[in-house]
Amino acid sequence: MADPIDFYFDFSSPYGYLASTAIDGLAARHGRRVRWRPFLIGALYKQLGYMPLEQPGKRAYFLHDVPRSARAMGVKLTIPASFPEALIAPARALYWIADRDEAKAAAFGAAAYRAYWSEGRKLADPQVVAEIAAGQGFAKDMVLAALNDPKVKDRLKAETDAAIAAGIFGSPFIIVDGERFWGSDRLDQVVKWLATGGW
Amino acid sequence: MADPIDFYFDFSSPYGYLASTAIDGLAARHGRRVRWRPFLIGALYKQLGYMPLEQPGKRAYFLHDVPRSARAMGVKLTIPASFPEALIAPARALYWIADRDEAKAAAFGAAAYRAYWSEGRKLADPQVVAEIAAGQGFAKDMVLAALNDPKVKDRLKAETDAAIAAGIFGSPFIIVDGERFWGSDRLDQVVKWLATGGW
Repeated sequence: MADPIDFYFDFSSPYGYLASTAIDGLAARHGRRVRWRPFLIGALYKQLGYMPLEQPGKRAYFLHDVPRSARAMGVKLTIPASFPEALIAPARALYWIADRDEAKAAAFGAAAYRAYWSEGRKLADPQVVAEIAAGQGFAKDMVLAALNDPKVKDRLKAETDAAIAAGIFGSPFIIVDGERFWGSDRLDQVVKWLATGGW
Repeated sequence: MADPIDFYFDFSSPYGYLASTAIDGLAARHGRRVRWRPFLIGALYKQLGYMPLEQPGKRAYFLHDVPRSARAMGVKLTIPASFPEALIAPARALYWIADRDEAKAAAFGAAAYRAYWSEGRKLADPQVVAEIAAGQGFAKDMVLAALNDPKVKDRLKAETDAAIAAGIFGSPFIIVDGERFWGSDRLDQVVKWLATGGW
């Protein structure tokens, strides 16, 4: 089987969510699997010294474009009142699950993303994260314990640092055989790259 | 005939160029014409206090994504050695032409954009701009005189200020019946909006 697609994202990124609804399917149609690689975009922005939505005009556009793009894709999406907020627990949980079963990590990632952006659930809450992980067969108390495990915390920090060191500067960021694509609006090019091997 | 589509762009914007190669055709297929509205993105960035490509990782991505996106669209594009540079003369010329013949202004805009991004011509040079305008039937010495006319200079300043006041924050920016689309990667949504009237 060909190398997996790397799917970098932050759970707080709505364009990441839009990409997440399509990434596993398009990969599978080209004989690929997807490595879901959450990172903390707040750490990235802190290091870069900027906040993308601090301009009022750009923020207003974003708040209009996100639901419009979701409707264009047929994806149910509501921007939570708490947006933007750091979503750390689901990212920690995903790596903990990935170390046990990578397919379940992808299914958990998709379910957690959907819970936040389509179902209005409080994804910053460890209890909610544990419930979603339970849907993949993991005991809730084990998940809750993992979320407070220093090794799990360090893992997410290390993954975030590695993503930044690899030049990831936004969410979603998709890498196919070394070729980098930034944004849900590059999904068409990702599909074309998978189909043709490049152009 | 339905209202025209407003196409805001800076000649120095490669994504604006990509959009320019498609905008008139897609508009015509939906019974629309296009108002080409160049503005000076440098003035916008100065007012916003940021430069989008100052981060090394983002700049490297941009320099790779632009030609890749051009190839995906079948558009010949080479990033000039002088990029990024202010391209003021063609923007002034376009408004001067538009006051005489808006269809010729669109044709001039397309030809000037192509000259810079596909043909390697020095679009910052008033002589080159005058030659391109001559292709639309305007005498070169009249164009060269217009480029130094304070009224023409003020017109571009006023158009740039108006674009910024209208909340335009990037290039290209396309407005269809009040609906705003930012970026050449929103062309699919522009076409869908024209076909359906919104969703």
